[in-house]
Amino acid sequence: MSRERSRTTVRRLPEKQVTDVGVLHGILDAALVAHVAVPAPGRLAVVPVGIARDGDRLLIHGSAASQAFRFLATGVETCTTVTLLDAVVVARSQFESSMDYRCAMIFGGYTALEGEEKEGALAVLSQALMPGMTQARPPSDKEVRAVSVLALPLTEWSLKVSDHDAPEDAPEDLDREVWGGVVPLHHVWGEPVTAPGLPGSPAVPQALSTWPEGRS
Amino acid sequence: MSRERSRTTVRRLPEKQVTDVGVLHGILDAALVAHVAVPAPGRLAVVPVGIARDGDRLLIHGSAASQAFRFLATGVETCTTVTLLDAVVVARSQFESSMDYRCAMIFGGYTALEGEEKEGALAVLSQALMPGMTQARPPSDKEVRAVSVLALPLTEWSLKVSDHDAPEDAPEDLDREVWGGVVPLHHVWGEPVTAPGLPGSPAVPQALSTWPEGRS
Repeated sequence: MSRERSRTTVRRLPEKQVTDVGVLHGILDAALVAHVAVPAPGRLAVVPVGIARDGDRLLIHGSAASQAFRFLATGVETCTTVTLLDAVVVARSQFESSMDYRCAMIFGGYTALEGEEKEGALAVLSQALMPGMTQARPPSDKEVRAVSVLALPLTEWSLKVSDHDAPEDAPEDLDREVWGGVVPLHHVWGEPVTAPGLPGSPAVPQALSTWPEGRS
Repeated sequence: MSRERSRTTVRRLPEKQVTDVGVLHGILDAALVAHVAVPAPGRLAVVPVGIARDGDRLLIHGSAASQAFRFLATGVETCTTVTLLDAVVVARSQFESSMDYRCAMIFGGYTALEGEEKEGALAVLSQALMPGMTQARPPSDKEVRAVSVLALPLTEWSLKVSDHDAPEDAPEDLDREVWGGVVPLHHVWGEPVTAPGLPGSPAVPQALSTWPEGRS
């Protein structure tokens, strides 16, 4: 596939394209949710899914009864997009105002996991989505059957990163006495709300206080 | 279209379906970004776009040179999804652990706006994405031409809202002395970073301090 024709070549604003796999991994590890196209005939949908990166593949999971997951499990070619929104960039013109973001698009079809591989993937998902919550009971056989776990190889992907420290104003606007700057958008954990009626009044797990910020 | 066959009927976890248009509007007004399927033949993609709600339609905008926007401007049927992630729900089993979220899926094709309608829509987008930044220069004719503005009627949509105050543990787990609860995820504005070298050292606009939290 020539570079010009590849769907992983960013056409618009190519200076924002990043090809570092470490950046891809960083985006996927920070994200909790991806948006996946489900190209069922006459019923194209974009669905949010909980994700985890497992080495060089992406894991998603959902209900085994979900029509979207059943269709994705056929291996149909699709696109999975993860976007982290970092800031609103206020320029001195509406046109140059923008957002800072990190976006990963991954192309390809999913494979349904089964057996021990499926159980291992569920453990990876659990650890990624609620790190350190090791006391949560692992799934029973029945629960494992009720879940669909799909894996996507991280082979065909493209990244677009916009990380302005400051707006890029047009020359004609540089003399205008108007505020411009960057307004960061932070994704932060709030105070955990303990469920009512827990026997033994267990303490809030220490691990929660070490959950990384910036997830979304 | 029968309700059973409608693509706006939530099949999985139907108790999470919400049909209140006010909830739809609330989700769209809180969001800054949607994920739109671009079903170009052999090149299906999911792209993030900045959005604004304008009454009973959704506006998106991007570069007029963008292949995705050119394709969407043909009016092709697609799906636009907005997801707000509110919390991680830690149950006493991995299986019952989940996330709180509000998700809107809107089906239908976009229409490209032109002329005065386009200029008005750009003003709506600017106000939605950076409220109160009224000093930013409106776009010149050339800048208007460089942007594509597309509108989607809010006619065919479905919502899914998961808003647990506490995990719903399985009966067999209720006696386990393990912590469970909800960890809220907040989307908050950080301290604005003023661009260097602004003439006249303009103050940070008051409007920034009133930007609503919870956007993402």
